Amino acid sequence: MTTTPQHALQDLYDDFARAGMIPLWTQLDDLMTSSPRPAAVPALWRWSTLYPLAERSGELVPVGRGGERRAIALANPGLPGEPYATPTLWAAIQYLGPREQAPAHRHTQTAFRFVVDGEGVWTNVEGDAVAMRRGDLLLTPGWHFHEHHNTTHLPMAWIDGLDIPLVRQLDAGFFEFGPDHLSTTATPDRSCNERLWAHPGLRPVVAPDNERHSPLMAYRWEHTDAALTAQLELETEGEIATVEPGHAAVRFSNPSNGKDALRTIRTEMHRYRAGTATTPVRAVGSSVWQVFDGSGVVRVGDQRYEVEKGDLYAVPSWAALSVETAGGLDAFRFGDDPVYEALGLARVERLEDGR
Amino acid sequence: MTTTPQHALQDLYDDFARAGMIPLWTQLDDLMTSSPRPAAVPALWRWSTLYPLAERSGELVPVGRGGERRAIALANPGLPGEPYATPTLWAAIQYLGPREQAPAHRHTQTAFRFVVDGEGVWTNVEGDAVAMRRGDLLLTPGWHFHEHHNTTHLPMAWIDGLDIPLVRQLDAGFFEFGPDHLSTTATPDRSCNERLWAHPGLRPVVAPDNERHSPLMAYRWEHTDAALTAQLELETEGEIATVEPGHAAVRFSNPSNGKDALRTIRTEMHRYRAGTATTPVRAVGSSVWQVFDGSGVVRVGDQRYEVEKGDLYAVPSWAALSVETAGGLDAFRFGDDPVYEALGLARVERLEDGR
Amino acid sequence: MTTTPQHALQDLYDDFARAGMIPLWTQLDDLMTSSPRPAAVPALWRWSTLYPLAERSGELVPVGRGGERRAIALANPGLPGEPYATPTLWAAIQYLGPREQAPAHRHTQTAFRFVVDGEGVWTNVEGDAVAMRRGDLLLTPGWHFHEHHNTTHLPMAWIDGLDIPLVRQLDAGFFEFGPDHLSTTATPDRSCNERLWAHPGLRPVVAPDNERHSPLMAYRWEHTDAALTAQLELETEGEIATVEPGHAAVRFSNPSNGKDALRTIRTEMHRYRAGTATTPVRAVGSSVWQVFDGSGVVRVGDQRYEVEKGDLYAVPSWAALSVETAGGLDAFRFGDDPVYEALGLARVERLEDGR
Amino acid sequence: MTTTPQHALQDLYDDFARAGMIPLWTQLDDLMTSSPRPAAVPALWRWSTLYPLAERSGELVPVGRGGERRAIALANPGLPGEPYATPTLWAAIQYLGPREQAPAHRHTQTAFRFVVDGEGVWTNVEGDAVAMRRGDLLLTPGWHFHEHHNTTHLPMAWIDGLDIPLVRQLDAGFFEFGPDHLSTTATPDRSCNERLWAHPGLRPVVAPDNERHSPLMAYRWEHTDAALTAQLELETEGEIATVEPGHAAVRFSNPSNGKDALRTIRTEMHRYRAGTATTPVRAVGSSVWQVFDGSGVVRVGDQRYEVEKGDLYAVPSWAALSVETAGGLDAFRFGDDPVYEALGLARVERLEDGR
Repeated sequence: MTTTPQHALQDLYDDFARAGMIPLWTQLDDLMTSSPRPAAVPALWRWSTLYPLAERSGELVPVGRGGERRAIALANPGLPGEPYATPTLWAAIQYLGPREQAPAHRHTQTAFRFVVDGEGVWTNVEGDAVAMRRGDLLLTPGWHFHEHHNTTHLPMAWIDGLDIPLVRQLDAGFFEFGPDHLSTTATPDRSCNERLWAHPGLRPVVAPDNERHSPLMAYRWEHTDAALTAQLELETEGEIATVEPGHAAVRFSNPSNGKDALRTIRTEMHRYRAGTATTPVRAVGSSVWQVFDGSGVVRVGDQRYEVEKGDLYAVPSWAALSVETAGGLDAFRFGDDPVYEALGLARVERLEDGR
Repeated sequence: MTTTPQHALQDLYDDFARAGMIPLWTQLDDLMTSSPRPAAVPALWRWSTLYPLAERSGELVPVGRGGERRAIALANPGLPGEPYATPTLWAAIQYLGPREQAPAHRHTQTAFRFVVDGEGVWTNVEGDAVAMRRGDLLLTPGWHFHEHHNTTHLPMAWIDGLDIPLVRQLDAGFFEFGPDHLSTTATPDRSCNERLWAHPGLRPVVAPDNERHSPLMAYRWEHTDAALTAQLELETEGEIATVEPGHAAVRFSNPSNGKDALRTIRTEMHRYRAGTATTPVRAVGSSVWQVFDGSGVVRVGDQRYEVEKGDLYAVPSWAALSVETAGGLDAFRFGDDPVYEALGLARVERLEDGR
Repeated sequence: MTTTPQHALQDLYDDFARAGMIPLWTQLDDLMTSSPRPAAVPALWRWSTLYPLAERSGELVPVGRGGERRAIALANPGLPGEPYATPTLWAAIQYLGPREQAPAHRHTQTAFRFVVDGEGVWTNVEGDAVAMRRGDLLLTPGWHFHEHHNTTHLPMAWIDGLDIPLVRQLDAGFFEFGPDHLSTTATPDRSCNERLWAHPGLRPVVAPDNERHSPLMAYRWEHTDAALTAQLELETEGEIATVEPGHAAVRFSNPSNGKDALRTIRTEMHRYRAGTATTPVRAVGSSVWQVFDGSGVVRVGDQRYEVEKGDLYAVPSWAALSVETAGGLDAFRFGDDPVYEALGLARVERLEDGR
Repeated sequence: MTTTPQHALQDLYDDFARAGMIPLWTQLDDLMTSSPRPAAVPALWRWSTLYPLAERSGELVPVGRGGERRAIALANPGLPGEPYATPTLWAAIQYLGPREQAPAHRHTQTAFRFVVDGEGVWTNVEGDAVAMRRGDLLLTPGWHFHEHHNTTHLPMAWIDGLDIPLVRQLDAGFFEFGPDHLSTTATPDRSCNERLWAHPGLRPVVAPDNERHSPLMAYRWEHTDAALTAQLELETEGEIATVEPGHAAVRFSNPSNGKDALRTIRTEMHRYRAGTATTPVRAVGSSVWQVFDGSGVVRVGDQRYEVEKGDLYAVPSWAALSVETAGGLDAFRFGDDPVYEALGLARVERLEDGR
């Protein structure tokens, strides 16, 4: 296309390199693609694999100051060497043995715990003891001290979700150790934040608005389950209540402003009625799902997964997702949607005729 | 003060009048006062007076198309001839006899019902049947069709609150009659809007944001009571949970944005622990209170009221309010606070050393 | 319709009165009308009447502490006895003689000045001296000390707009006298607030966000004129730039948030190209207009006014407004629109086929 | 620390790898650092190097469909192989020869051009021809078609800033080619968007709010210069107008909402008075600066740069920045601040006593 002597061009490129410069025209196709071309790939991690490995870690690896947490991250095969489920999300199984404690620290990374099974651990968030039980979502907003302790003689495992990759990419991470001893050994049924805030449509008059994080930090399964049940019943009665036929979904929200419970991570619970097959949808941004109950077939991009309780799958940006279930399926979802919405980068597409 | 011949000045004033003009300098003291000088006055209406009058209306006055509602408004003595509790708020006792119906209509005025006693009436809001029971707050946002029907053989009375004076002053009222027949005779325990939205911190994924009104339109006493109980317990445990010592309060809010449940009216429930005496507070804007339970002494401006269940009192702008209760007191409050906050006119003052 | 003996009903009504109650059913038609039925009426005040009266006031009435301002308000004939142009807006002609001063005060009422003719007065707002010249809009946000002084040997008149009726209805007015002596006698061409903020699309990094009022408090005619001229030129070039064919309009806005320059009053300048006839529009809320230049025919509700420079007309809520001009017309408008938008009460209707 | 047989642990780690898992405890120190530990480093690129390389590219590399732009990116030495000035920002020098054209395309990445020298190029943004001249900032919000053409017989160079790294990391990039022929060859002095929107504090009534991007897309040097001059004059007069003594700064903002002109990139112009030495400041997030005029000494982290007109320097996250200038310095800045503010991750620290 150009008649330029090759050696002059090569000299130029060498001089670019020396000057700390890289031309756009040789890279445009990689830098600015016609649609997202994520390095991350669809991926599945089976609970039947994860849990025994966590159990073995419980035997072999102590938990305590330094390592801080016995958490094992899901590593997306498309992001080799990185402990990232997607380019923005970190997801791990965390395991705490009988009577064990994980010491206090805080960080600017936003975190939550979701419990697929078990109970007996309390997570103390800024000294507020929060029980963890099957189906519960527990928040640890950024820069809140938190620690965990198992009060029982049985181990407990759950999943952690954080925005570690996002915060690392943004060079925005700060971390501090807390005191070595538990702030409280209380084991209340309900935390203070719930007692103040977990009343539908009611807010304490004393509490200030809080845009930074949800003042409510524990979302209990009984409420989530009731909300999903109601949506499907309302759908049956002819009301608009579900995302699409047979597909109920609730979003965990900040009761002080109605926005996402966490600033950088969207958290939701989805329920698919027995016999449902959803329309494939693709969206900019990535997400991680965990089957909470039931079983089904999940398609992510060109992958097809038969999933059951505890299994986790990652959905990269712009990969279509659809679900089929014969017997019904409940799945917890977390995604980076708030980031895209805040930056004007959100885009969603329903693929009505399949992919 | 002026050496001008009086007749020249009088001529000028006469010419002002002919030209449709009024000078500021003769009126300034009335127009722009150093602090609010409301025409409305502190006022008390006793339930023991209101209820028998409502009952007699039930015998003498039919309810139906035309009169629309058997509602009797509280008229502030400072606003003679006007059926206004305060310059912005309309408050009434509404009474529906056995098997009676109040026909459908809608208006741009915002409304709510609060139930101090009884049950058996359903208010249908845009066809969604909403049960009314003691302690419940039921919303009718502006321009929503609504109708009421009593399904029992007993009468029922409740209070209505609307922004009629505000909307009238603003010349913003529109009104339409609805169908003559009930949209539904269903008597469900919970309305559709509650089944979708009355789950703490959870929002349906399908539902859009709504800045105009709360998608939740029924706030049940069991939740309100639990929230107030929790605040006082938390206070006892040393947590920050109450407005001031012994004084718990919750605000009814729009779960889609955390703001007031209604755009023009703030609604709250307050609980004063036995033995509490509150600090006098005065604020720009007016409010109406109804004792829900218990008894006490309320001071409004220079008035002192001994109040008990069902009694209503109006607090004019900038009048100090304080409460003392030996045995404990629950009171429902509605005020025009959102108007002042939206317009940058809010001002509040705590009078630490009494008035 | 009812067989109730009349005397029983009369007794009931008497008892209502004694109890401080007023039934809804006898008043509904007045309280809740099918559409707004304002007491205020369309009204016109001619500059050729106003100005000589202001001049005579200049001779007969001193300006100074106590009366504070030599301002004469437009009184809507539909609101007898009240110095209100509309139910929410106060509008006046203010007149300051040679070398006169109007002393400092502040109030929670929001104010502006608009200059249809003349110059030579500075208004000091919190000590910042703001020149007033033909075509300029000068703000005095609520609770800002302000004073005026005429530096020339000629008198000057302008119009003042305030939200006095709204604030009075809301019982939200506070007022304070300032020092008796001028804060500054400086007569700069541009005020400090303009030098900081009157740069298109540029904001000082140091300045905080300000939701309460515009940090820019002077809008100069040269900019307003240029913006209107550009809109009509762009329209001619085929761009979308005008409100409707031949009708350009700019809104004075708060550069820190893009909203109205004042919290409770919308301010705009409209330009109608020669030969334009606008579509009648009616809106909830009221406004006052002043012809700045040119002449034309204005229809407000059922009134028809031939207007020219300086003439003022009031548009009540829901009255249709249209303008015809053979030779072109510029008009300044102020209205209470932000109040209705903030409270969810705004409604507008274009009457394509006339009224 | 653990007595676990090493081989059991190794087996576990091997099984982690097979399962697509990576433990946290071996990585914590890298993943969650006590403060940001950016890979990007302070860096300087001299205009005296860049411009001649751009010139040689003009001779050797054609501009046109495919390569699209003759832009050469600044590559941060800490991010080897990547054409990124910082982890979120792409910065390049773009060069267009006499009569050359760069063809139309659009992308979700947000872009701007800033001109340190020269004129004669128009950038057409969605068909609106925007002149480019020394000191001007020209926006290309995401998903707007844009093309450039040089109307003169002289070359022109400028800098481009985009959020390419951020959008790539977020897998949110879409790109489309536009028509091969210029949408317009008009060369107006002012673009349509300026004629509509570049009037201080004035907004067209017809234009809708726009949260996604600024409706104003050209910020002219004459206004920027006037604003900076005024700040320093006001400072001299004793007003609060500058960021710190001797340091004026304006932010390019969206006049429809007062926020940053672009959703993901903050753009500012700073002026340091002769003799100024600024307090070192460090902030989360990164930025790139270009000297527009004057000279001085810039310290970034542990680096010290003597800079003059056209020189560019990159400031990584949490690296302290300070400036000293004997003769005065003007510098253009762009940074990723809006991203951190939107996500609740912003943090700034002034280092009063130096580093």
